[in-house]
Amino acid sequence: MNYHMIRYVIGQIMKLGAALMGLPLLASLYYLDEGTIPLLAVMLPLGIMGYILTGFKPKNQTIYAREGFVIVALAWVLLSAFGALPFVIGGQIPSFTDALFETVSGFTTTGSTLVPDIESFPMSLKLWRSFTHWIGGMGVLVFALAILPAGSAQSMYIMRAEVPGPSVGKLVAKTQLTARILYGIYIFFTVLEAVMLRLTGMRWFDCVANAFATAGTGGFSVLNDGIGGYHNVWVEVVITAFMLIFSINFNLFYLLLIRRFSDVLKNVEIKVFFGIYLFSTLMVTFNIAPMYNSFSRALRYAGFTVASLSSSTGFGNSDFTQWPGFSQTILILLMFCGACAGSTGGGLKVARVIILLRSGLREMRRQLNPKVVATVKLEGQSVDSEQIMTQGSFFIIYMVILLVSTLFISMDKYGFDVSFSAALTALNNMGPGIGAIGPYGNFSEFTPLSKFVLIFDMLAGRLEIFPVLIAFMPRTWKKA
Amino acid sequence: MNYHMIRYVIGQIMKLGAALMGLPLLASLYYLDEGTIPLLAVMLPLGIMGYILTGFKPKNQTIYAREGFVIVALAWVLLSAFGALPFVIGGQIPSFTDALFETVSGFTTTGSTLVPDIESFPMSLKLWRSFTHWIGGMGVLVFALAILPAGSAQSMYIMRAEVPGPSVGKLVAKTQLTARILYGIYIFFTVLEAVMLRLTGMRWFDCVANAFATAGTGGFSVLNDGIGGYHNVWVEVVITAFMLIFSINFNLFYLLLIRRFSDVLKNVEIKVFFGIYLFSTLMVTFNIAPMYNSFSRALRYAGFTVASLSSSTGFGNSDFTQWPGFSQTILILLMFCGACAGSTGGGLKVARVIILLRSGLREMRRQLNPKVVATVKLEGQSVDSEQIMTQGSFFIIYMVILLVSTLFISMDKYGFDVSFSAALTALNNMGPGIGAIGPYGNFSEFTPLSKFVLIFDMLAGRLEIFPVLIAFMPRTWKKA
Repeated sequence: MNYHMIRYVIGQIMKLGAALMGLPLLASLYYLDEGTIPLLAVMLPLGIMGYILTGFKPKNQTIYAREGFVIVALAWVLLSAFGALPFVIGGQIPSFTDALFETVSGFTTTGSTLVPDIESFPMSLKLWRSFTHWIGGMGVLVFALAILPAGSAQSMYIMRAEVPGPSVGKLVAKTQLTARILYGIYIFFTVLEAVMLRLTGMRWFDCVANAFATAGTGGFSVLNDGIGGYHNVWVEVVITAFMLIFSINFNLFYLLLIRRFSDVLKNVEIKVFFGIYLFSTLMVTFNIAPMYNSFSRALRYAGFTVASLSSSTGFGNSDFTQWPGFSQTILILLMFCGACAGSTGGGLKVARVIILLRSGLREMRRQLNPKVVATVKLEGQSVDSEQIMTQGSFFIIYMVILLVSTLFISMDKYGFDVSFSAALTALNNMGPGIGAIGPYGNFSEFTPLSKFVLIFDMLAGRLEIFPVLIAFMPRTWKKA
Repeated sequence: MNYHMIRYVIGQIMKLGAALMGLPLLASLYYLDEGTIPLLAVMLPLGIMGYILTGFKPKNQTIYAREGFVIVALAWVLLSAFGALPFVIGGQIPSFTDALFETVSGFTTTGSTLVPDIESFPMSLKLWRSFTHWIGGMGVLVFALAILPAGSAQSMYIMRAEVPGPSVGKLVAKTQLTARILYGIYIFFTVLEAVMLRLTGMRWFDCVANAFATAGTGGFSVLNDGIGGYHNVWVEVVITAFMLIFSINFNLFYLLLIRRFSDVLKNVEIKVFFGIYLFSTLMVTFNIAPMYNSFSRALRYAGFTVASLSSSTGFGNSDFTQWPGFSQTILILLMFCGACAGSTGGGLKVARVIILLRSGLREMRRQLNPKVVATVKLEGQSVDSEQIMTQGSFFIIYMVILLVSTLFISMDKYGFDVSFSAALTALNNMGPGIGAIGPYGNFSEFTPLSKFVLIFDMLAGRLEIFPVLIAFMPRTWKKA
């Protein structure tokens, strides 16, 4: 274990974290709100600690998967802890546990909230809360790789641990350039969304905050009534479109950029993703139309909500906890499936689901004829058996975490359905659950134990489980 | 595909099915009830068809996995269809769909019922209903192998498709002798249970019916109020003990019989099973004790219910749908896990869960250090990677069936929780669900679509998925 390198990278992340808080600080100075002192009170010590930790550059900069996992897990925990402090110091969320829950929910792009009245927050802290979605969406370490001087050749280990999806194909040979391209695309679409929201008549502050929340597929809103609170169908259309855009594998945008259109057209995952989107939207629309006595209203609610849950954003324009069981079941299945690999979305990821389903079919062929060498293919390439086992094991660990978390949360006052949906929504970085924690409910009534379980689930979901679990294994910390 | 051999074996099974109905026929003659005509009306055509189909012995008796799967799937569907007819003809369950649901629930040892008043049934048909549990528990084809003249050397393919658990270790070299030993142990414990129930003061008819239902880990009761209806703690103690006995891998009883005690003591699965049983019982007892204001009553309910759900029997002595969310979540986790491999119990099976969990841990070690060759062990032997993939794929297909079934059932009038628990209880051959389908509810309110989905799930669960799915694949029916 290269402790010096861990210290050094963590120091850089702390400096970066302090710098990122500059945005809400600027907002607090512009709006002259109460956010200035709480933000400065965190930025200064955070930045100073970062400078101290990065004071000595380690001689041996070699890191491996082990260090990559530990760095990512530590960085996310530390940034969440410091990111929570302005809410505690400012008094908006007096309990540190609650503030940590809210901030982890932000960075992991979950969007579950325990704030009953967000409209009472200072503008700067509302912006910080939404900004955490944007930072966490593409990954703070990927950002560090993009802007810091090109580090060691093994920075790939960090990137692999942070970017969602079953496998990270480097776009280009250099990790740093890959990180820059990813962030370039990310910034482009975020700005585009903010501008398009502005065209609907939304005020600039909300445009920026909502674009942050959409880009990270997070789901925090700056209105108590969520996106439905704008009562504007164009706002919902724009946000639906961008929720879907941010659910797409960013590699595809890069392929578009370098004009490799045929590769984009051949992509299976995106076809499956949009197939699921259209099918689910239709099913839900027909199912809820009688309830609203209107096909067009049903389509508006279904199209938005299905995009919101497929992308794992969790924005709401209607209360789906009132919908019939069939629609709710579709939404829960969408939570499992999630968005495309290599996007900012959560869930199991469509590519992983395809690999899992195809390995199931392969097993059926093998049961019929054990001599047949059946392969699993994705995007025209055959997936090797180690990769199939990795995805299978991932799914097993995912289910174990889901069920064990449900068990812990069920010690709370809710029934199985609410406990299960809480764990599911946290682990898939979704946001709302069913029942008391639906789109118009919140998580404030849970006990601290449940909140910590959910914090763990959100981090495990965002970092695709392995970094978080591995950081807890004693074996990891042994000297080689 | 050896169609002649399929025809021949199916014919034998039909003859056997007709013969097995002799037991309720004897009961109907003894009690002089209305079961005689309905039973004879099914037995005669079934037996005659069986004689016709077995008239010509196929020249080529070679069968492979493909034929094994098809024979098992067909045999189960046919026996269930014929087994349902006495209830339709007798008028106790007028709808064929309902009678089929009840009979499949019987043969698959699920024990979900849609009969609101079982006490109104003729004795003979009550006995037939409970007897289906006993027939299905160890498997009708295994029974055929045990009693029919020694068949082809490939009969192992049939046995493997029908016996529950991740892998069938033949006890002895000959399949027929293995089948006889299994049935010998099965009959011994069934008789022992009936005698012990008699000692509690239960009338003989109920002793036999309840012993059938326990042995198959089924759960049909001959009282409307289930086992709780006897209001006798000794009845509950005896049945708890036998539910646990029938959850144990029968190979262990054979090892005891041939005095290989050290092999029994080394068995990991049984230790994990009883560990789960004791831990869950304690947790549930403490959780429900305040509700009943009595630790001993809580222990009585918890000990019985946990054994009932761990073994997948589904007997009830209390209404666990009224218990707190924590206890209900434990019960749902027990449903997933199920009993030991090679027992008559359902669920994923403890051995499979151990393999899945260990392959998850193995993957974490491999993520840390890809060069390490990490193995998965069970019962001292390392599980090869094909076997790990098979179990992983099994789990994936299991989850897909569970979620897709939930989706279909959710078109019914119930919410997600009831729909999910219906699919879960059917696929794990458990019996009761939560909410309206709890231990004191029933399945009669579901639409025919939901009932057919549940019938499919019960068969898929009992036959461990592959035979049922493979029988539906067009590829299976192609000429080689």
